[in-house]
Amino acid sequence: MRMRTLWRVLVGPPVRARDVSREQITPVEGLSALSLDALTSVAYGPEAIIAVLAVAGARALHLVLPVTVAIVVLLAILVFSYRQVIDAYPGGGGAYAVSLDNFGPRVSLVAAAALVVDYTLTVAVSIAAGTAALTSAFPGLSPATVPICLAVLAVITLVNLRGLGDAARAFLLPTMVFIVGLLAILAIGLIHPLALHAAPLSRSLLPARAVEPLSLLLLLKAFSAGCSALTGVEAIANGVPLFKPPRVRRAKRTELLLGVILGAMLLGVATLAGRWRVAPRSGQTVLSQVMTIAVGRDWAYYAMSLTIMVVLALAANTSFGGLPVLASLLARNNYLPHLYALRDDRQVFASGIWTLAILSGALLVAVGGRTLTLIPLYAIGVFTGFTLSQGGLVVHWRRTRPPRWRYRASLNGLGAAVTAVATVVFLATKFTEGAWVVVLALPAFIMLFTRIHRYYDQAGRALGIGRIPGKPQARPMAVVVPVTGVSRLAQYGISAALSISEHVQAVTVVPSGAGEESERVRELQRQWKRWNPGVPLRVLRTEYASVARPIVAFVDRLRRRCSEPVIVLIPVALPDRLRYRFLHNHIDLVLTRALRYRPDVVVARVPVRVHVHRRAAPRR
Amino acid sequence: MRMRTLWRVLVGPPVRARDVSREQITPVEGLSALSLDALTSVAYGPEAIIAVLAVAGARALHLVLPVTVAIVVLLAILVFSYRQVIDAYPGGGGAYAVSLDNFGPRVSLVAAAALVVDYTLTVAVSIAAGTAALTSAFPGLSPATVPICLAVLAVITLVNLRGLGDAARAFLLPTMVFIVGLLAILAIGLIHPLALHAAPLSRSLLPARAVEPLSLLLLLKAFSAGCSALTGVEAIANGVPLFKPPRVRRAKRTELLLGVILGAMLLGVATLAGRWRVAPRSGQTVLSQVMTIAVGRDWAYYAMSLTIMVVLALAANTSFGGLPVLASLLARNNYLPHLYALRDDRQVFASGIWTLAILSGALLVAVGGRTLTLIPLYAIGVFTGFTLSQGGLVVHWRRTRPPRWRYRASLNGLGAAVTAVATVVFLATKFTEGAWVVVLALPAFIMLFTRIHRYYDQAGRALGIGRIPGKPQARPMAVVVPVTGVSRLAQYGISAALSISEHVQAVTVVPSGAGEESERVRELQRQWKRWNPGVPLRVLRTEYASVARPIVAFVDRLRRRCSEPVIVLIPVALPDRLRYRFLHNHIDLVLTRALRYRPDVVVARVPVRVHVHRRAAPRR
Repeated sequence: MRMRTLWRVLVGPPVRARDVSREQITPVEGLSALSLDALTSVAYGPEAIIAVLAVAGARALHLVLPVTVAIVVLLAILVFSYRQVIDAYPGGGGAYAVSLDNFGPRVSLVAAAALVVDYTLTVAVSIAAGTAALTSAFPGLSPATVPICLAVLAVITLVNLRGLGDAARAFLLPTMVFIVGLLAILAIGLIHPLALHAAPLSRSLLPARAVEPLSLLLLLKAFSAGCSALTGVEAIANGVPLFKPPRVRRAKRTELLLGVILGAMLLGVATLAGRWRVAPRSGQTVLSQVMTIAVGRDWAYYAMSLTIMVVLALAANTSFGGLPVLASLLARNNYLPHLYALRDDRQVFASGIWTLAILSGALLVAVGGRTLTLIPLYAIGVFTGFTLSQGGLVVHWRRTRPPRWRYRASLNGLGAAVTAVATVVFLATKFTEGAWVVVLALPAFIMLFTRIHRYYDQAGRALGIGRIPGKPQARPMAVVVPVTGVSRLAQYGISAALSISEHVQAVTVVPSGAGEESERVRELQRQWKRWNPGVPLRVLRTEYASVARPIVAFVDRLRRRCSEPVIVLIPVALPDRLRYRFLHNHIDLVLTRALRYRPDVVVARVPVRVHVHRRAAPRR
Repeated sequence: MRMRTLWRVLVGPPVRARDVSREQITPVEGLSALSLDALTSVAYGPEAIIAVLAVAGARALHLVLPVTVAIVVLLAILVFSYRQVIDAYPGGGGAYAVSLDNFGPRVSLVAAAALVVDYTLTVAVSIAAGTAALTSAFPGLSPATVPICLAVLAVITLVNLRGLGDAARAFLLPTMVFIVGLLAILAIGLIHPLALHAAPLSRSLLPARAVEPLSLLLLLKAFSAGCSALTGVEAIANGVPLFKPPRVRRAKRTELLLGVILGAMLLGVATLAGRWRVAPRSGQTVLSQVMTIAVGRDWAYYAMSLTIMVVLALAANTSFGGLPVLASLLARNNYLPHLYALRDDRQVFASGIWTLAILSGALLVAVGGRTLTLIPLYAIGVFTGFTLSQGGLVVHWRRTRPPRWRYRASLNGLGAAVTAVATVVFLATKFTEGAWVVVLALPAFIMLFTRIHRYYDQAGRALGIGRIPGKPQARPMAVVVPVTGVSRLAQYGISAALSISEHVQAVTVVPSGAGEESERVRELQRQWKRWNPGVPLRVLRTEYASVARPIVAFVDRLRRRCSEPVIVLIPVALPDRLRYRFLHNHIDLVLTRALRYRPDVVVARVPVRVHVHRRAAPRR
């Protein structure tokens, strides 16, 4: 009881459906509500590029900027493509919805699987990167990386189980501090004639000599690693209904704003990292090094590090807005257990929230909270979704043929082609570094969805859902009441039984053999006679220890003999306090489990309250 | 289903009570069945002494032999005292039984608590010491100490869940190899003119200078640490009924045999360790060092190390024979949940076995599998039991006054006094090193026992157990059937309801408000009319997400209005395969939980089977 009370305090009281806030947002608020995942990827995208290039030695680091430029070009293509998605699907155009609409259910499952992977990885990567920002600022915390990750995850999970309500508006402040602060620091760094501040002291991971020659493959690897910075640019197109009218115009403006800010940040970090030859270091992120050199380990640095930690946690939070809703759509279409379509007392999809928390928590533990280990897995799911969305849009434009549809189709076609090529590049270059996990996970999820769907189809037919079944028919019932002795428990059980039917039998189980036991039986029979409840007592003897076995056998014999449906009424002592429940024999649980698969056998518990007045009874 | 099958294969099929073997043993077999705990303590007792003395530097090590002699004298007193326990309690004289008989229930709970602590520590210490024997022989295994400990524990637990049957006889061979082999190695070591073999190479833990001066306190500490070697000498007195007649004579002979062998082993190890100045070393036990010096790292050493590992595991196993039986006695006397008095399908007390496995496993993990960390906790529980047994015997002799009762009483009195003094010494010298855990655990267990006892007293009164209750009375019942639509589920549920009563209502829950939802309601009502099952359908509207809440409210209103007892019949789809069960809504679980505490409300599940033919349906 007290555990449940504590939980209620943490999660809050139940909420009415109409009380769930349906606030509507402006473009600037859209940045904080929908674009944090994309904006915060500046914390790990450039780092991923540098980590790849570093294996070719210090000389290769001047390539950070050209690779980033290529990524920003891709960003521009994506931004314009997604502005068209907003036009086409003002009701919200996630990859799942778009591909369901244009490619049919089969392909949409690919998108759904990719999204599940994507949401999970977004949570894990954002939390890992946020923790890295924290441990860069406070190196003493590094040994606790995994516990910190899990604590952040726990807080996010709890907040989402409560339901966010008006909280999204509270994201605005940290988002603004992050955007303005980081752009300011980058500007200071760019204006500075030279790095005035000492470079950070942690151990450089740059190898003394090149481990690998600089090759096209390495460049492609760096490009694909950096594409992790593009994850999240699709989120605004999913969330069009959240905007204030005119929705489409505001959403498109937000998308453009996101593109400009993210592009500027990426180019700024890449320019400074290239100019200052920032190399990967243990215990300090690239962004932390850039900030340290630009403004020193001063209040601005620490404030910014904490802000980055916070906005990355908020970025992880956006996945918690996405996956549970996707799961509820899939469940409603019979691709996931219906459990995922049920709202909780707080009107949130609790099963989806828990699933996401468990999946991403397991991932964080598996990689020890290291962002760079997760990067090779990351972009594949996202870019698969990009390709499906853009490809779906091409089909959409061809089908609907609005004005300038050819131009629109070719723009989305370009987006689809570029992201498809990028996906192939990811697969080819990152396969052995972890991408194989995603290559296995996607078909596994798709198979899970289709198998669940097949089962629901079959079960629906078997249960005759949607058809008018035969008329219900009353049949007399045989009632069995298991008892252990003459007591109020037996009285209540038999009372309920007699209320249901006249065909009632009490049964009791005794071990056969021992003389002491048959004495107990005789005593019980004497007491039964004295009580005379109007119901016969059957004594079932057994050589086995299980009490359930002989009762199940008795029920089976009864069903064979009399063809009546059988109802087993188990009197159960229910103490006032939860902790005393463990003290009563759980024969009801054993019996319920044993009889669960008997057709025509109904198992019921007759609760008999046990009022215990604490400390009222004399102590022994 | 498959999980349960696997479990059945591991644990074996159910066993009849009469098929449980009740073999009877000879004195030599008694050594393997009852004395392994005592005999194997030679593997950690001398080590514990040396570890204490070592803090006073190398010179202190010549005191190993005198301390051991004192312990062997105590052993002799205990052996003769327990031979008298066998005389007095030929039915088995555990500390619990003896103190219950002579001191009453209050004191017997102290003995019970001490025994629980003792059994748990015996398992943990024996497994830790066995693993140490293994890692001494194969140092490469040391990093895996805790996993090895837990694996050994898992095997022992599983074997005991199967039930031992005739297995005890199989213990004979390793026990004999252990006794004969170790005595032979000690003899070789004593006859050798000098240590011919090189001393072991692992790092000595002996401090370069004395950390502490040699003091009386240190000697007392060494003595109390060494007393861990005496644990287990009481086991034979507990197991007298296992012996072939003449039971008492055979049991007494076994006790004497145990004393002689254990004394010889302890003195042998102490002599050699003192002569060769064996110091504690990391990664190698004292016994392993003694054996290495005596016979070299040769086949004899390795064979003996493995044997020690095996007999220590078997020693841990003896606790699994003890604690579950003790727990069942306590449960039968209402001091533990009745669950502990229930036999499993295999006729073993499974709850007791699981409890012991979990407690000792937690202990092993907590101390990282280090024997020496457990030693300060060990002897206190055991010696508390010794004192209570011997003290109880003094009372027993005074009461029964057999011939020579004064002599007998004074012998047991001596035993009680000496062990009481030893217990006080343990407490005083080892309190800060871990003994406080036991000092806290004993009263905690006693409080648990008494609180459970009080609850059962009160619950028994509240349930009128042993009194003749009022006559059962039939009352018409109101039946509520929650449905989600028109289907076979509803048909089966309503059929069962009409069989029970004529007062039946179907209820369904819909979220209020949304227009789409009221359309669904109209459609459902149309279908219901077409079906016309002869039962009204109540539509319950709710603004909350929970489906259980409105049904509970409806049931409460019904009870207030019509004063009839209510039975809620929940139709439940039961697929053939376990894994599909997750795919059906678990409203029955939610409703059962929500209604559990309503008196006069019976909750029943009406199982409706879902036959799904795999692969028969066409794929979508």
